[in-house]
Amino acid sequence: MMESGTLEFSKRGKRLIGQEMFKILERAKDMERRGQRVFHLELGNSSFPPPSEVTQATIDALMNGKVGYVPSSGHPELRMALAKYYGDQGCTGITENNFVISPANLLINQVLDLIANGGDSVVVFTPAFPTYLAAINHIGLVPNPIALEKGNGFHLTRQVVDQAISLKPKVIIVNSANNPTGAVYTQTSLEYLIHQCAQHGIWVLSDETYAELCYRWPFWSLSASEYERLIVVSSFSKAYSIPGYRTGYAIANPLVAAKLTLSCSTLFSCLPMFTQEGCVAALQVGEAYLHDVRTHYSRMTEKCADLINQSNVLSCAVPDAAFYLFIHIQDTHLNAQEFCERLLQERETALTPGNSFGPGLGSFVRASVSGPEEDVLEGIRRLVHFGLEARETPSWWSEHTTPFKRVGHAV
Amino acid sequence: MMESGTLEFSKRGKRLIGQEMFKILERAKDMERRGQRVFHLELGNSSFPPPSEVTQATIDALMNGKVGYVPSSGHPELRMALAKYYGDQGCTGITENNFVISPANLLINQVLDLIANGGDSVVVFTPAFPTYLAAINHIGLVPNPIALEKGNGFHLTRQVVDQAISLKPKVIIVNSANNPTGAVYTQTSLEYLIHQCAQHGIWVLSDETYAELCYRWPFWSLSASEYERLIVVSSFSKAYSIPGYRTGYAIANPLVAAKLTLSCSTLFSCLPMFTQEGCVAALQVGEAYLHDVRTHYSRMTEKCADLINQSNVLSCAVPDAAFYLFIHIQDTHLNAQEFCERLLQERETALTPGNSFGPGLGSFVRASVSGPEEDVLEGIRRLVHFGLEARETPSWWSEHTTPFKRVGHAV
Repeated sequence: MMESGTLEFSKRGKRLIGQEMFKILERAKDMERRGQRVFHLELGNSSFPPPSEVTQATIDALMNGKVGYVPSSGHPELRMALAKYYGDQGCTGITENNFVISPANLLINQVLDLIANGGDSVVVFTPAFPTYLAAINHIGLVPNPIALEKGNGFHLTRQVVDQAISLKPKVIIVNSANNPTGAVYTQTSLEYLIHQCAQHGIWVLSDETYAELCYRWPFWSLSASEYERLIVVSSFSKAYSIPGYRTGYAIANPLVAAKLTLSCSTLFSCLPMFTQEGCVAALQVGEAYLHDVRTHYSRMTEKCADLINQSNVLSCAVPDAAFYLFIHIQDTHLNAQEFCERLLQERETALTPGNSFGPGLGSFVRASVSGPEEDVLEGIRRLVHFGLEARETPSWWSEHTTPFKRVGHAV
Repeated sequence: MMESGTLEFSKRGKRLIGQEMFKILERAKDMERRGQRVFHLELGNSSFPPPSEVTQATIDALMNGKVGYVPSSGHPELRMALAKYYGDQGCTGITENNFVISPANLLINQVLDLIANGGDSVVVFTPAFPTYLAAINHIGLVPNPIALEKGNGFHLTRQVVDQAISLKPKVIIVNSANNPTGAVYTQTSLEYLIHQCAQHGIWVLSDETYAELCYRWPFWSLSASEYERLIVVSSFSKAYSIPGYRTGYAIANPLVAAKLTLSCSTLFSCLPMFTQEGCVAALQVGEAYLHDVRTHYSRMTEKCADLINQSNVLSCAVPDAAFYLFIHIQDTHLNAQEFCERLLQERETALTPGNSFGPGLGSFVRASVSGPEEDVLEGIRRLVHFGLEARETPSWWSEHTTPFKRVGHAV
């Protein structure tokens, strides 16, 4: 088919930006095909083995020919298993009719498209998972990024909630445990958010994808709330180390769930039955596996944060959850885009620039430590060495913009 | 979470209609959970076993821990295998950069959303796959259904192409081999369509999902065309009996393919790696398997069409491709909705009413004969018996609207 530069796309088409980390993955894979070794810190692509029960249940389903369609709302067995799982955790009155199965990333798009019209405003607390901004942009909504403060660990405070409410947005997106900061919000702050939103009829999209991976602070889920304009989105990807299953779910009141089911039916018909049977097995394994995963990520994040903080050029907080480090690179005098570009080209190490997570974050980069331990540690070492060298060997950019700041810095 | 009737959805949200056959599936599954046996003719849910090589490749990938992310454009191996597959069939100059991996049903939505704005008109030749109308409706496009004629086997003619062009639509959707009619359009008619669209700068979305299942008429693919505003969508679902893999692809010029990749990245990140490795194996199996599938569906469609046509109350054409029968039920004096409703409730047999496939088709129903042979034959027998009884035992509706037409009808 012919190549062309004259094609005109739709308004939505022109506003597509995608996810930066998948562009980086594509470039890294190209380098690998050319024979280069790449250290992958760009994506939350867990190398921790999934529960063998999950793999086995998926294989059993495939062997039993379960390769047909299921209802658009999801495999009934999975929806019932989820209702039981949440019920056991104290969500009263929750049934399978509160659940819709769909990839969590897609659900972010589906939910926003279901409740907001072009021009409606959406509050996002930044740093934020890039898909929020990509989806808002694509749909034609107006993003209202509200910056959380590095000084208090990027936590949700009463002050930023008040700021969000004062903007009278259509939707507020909240993400605890947070990607990329690893912050886990307190029950008090989340309840205050819901209370204020209820007062003003504001929709809340709560992304709880990393709920099961809180190891330094207890997680509090909004799923127990009865607020009718609340939609919780979560995923099996991160907790059970199966990001490639592309299986997540929404929890919503039955009217919203029915609408989301129509969205699934219109968009993609349904998800595979065999991956969903694997997810049923995941819920049965539960804590026995999750304990090991949490221990692993707790150790990895601490170890990698130590390497970074000992460098005296890069710095990051030790996260309360998940497997990301949100690293301050200001002392390298490189901006995040240049830092990431050069780290990939010169040190074969892929990570994600901070500006993908919101405005004003060009002095941060995100490193995922979810990959194979030795590879991650090597990637972190390269990152640290590069940071040290960058400070000592200024780029053209830093030379012309901050010529005096480097003088006298000790390594 | 609380139930509510006071929630307001977006314009797009209000226009969601989903796919009728998935609603029927959901109801049929509910009946099965209550212990009833249901004969499934509502969906193209093949029970023909997939190639063992496909299942094995998928299992191998799972066993090898390939449960992580791949690039948003698709697994590079699959895109390269597709380029080779189409190249071998005579598509010159086609490379992996022409391919994007995504569920075919989602691609219909993605393509329309990428090229058309709310209010733009889209021509659909009816009867048409319900997702076209659901996607058009959801996005806020203006559907221009153009009725194909039962009298000439629902074929694409120069006359309907001229009619389509005269409407100056933004997009024309064409679907050969056709769901639900089983018609395979001629090379002449498709080339005429492309030529006319090129003259007027009209986009063409060619859905070739059933390409490999043409058994009574040779298939001609538009993928060989170099028209820059052409996007071909296809799927592994039907040819390789893996609808539950939810894996399809678009073929487009590299600029459009890059835009669709951004759409995939924004919407769902990527598809599973292990299902895509299964699809690589499918392309390697190719003809050896497809020959058997075609023979099976050719036999099933002929056998079932015979049962229907011998009834003297229902009638259908023997399709040239795929596994659907588009059945005329006019002599039963029931409309399609009532026919399908009662057949499911009274005879435990699920099929899809004709009005799901476009306006003015309320005297047709679609039966899929892709299920297990004995179940399908039992479903068809129930359908025929019900048709005969309906003609003899008029419903309230037929009694009050066509009281005299039944007199003197022989069974």
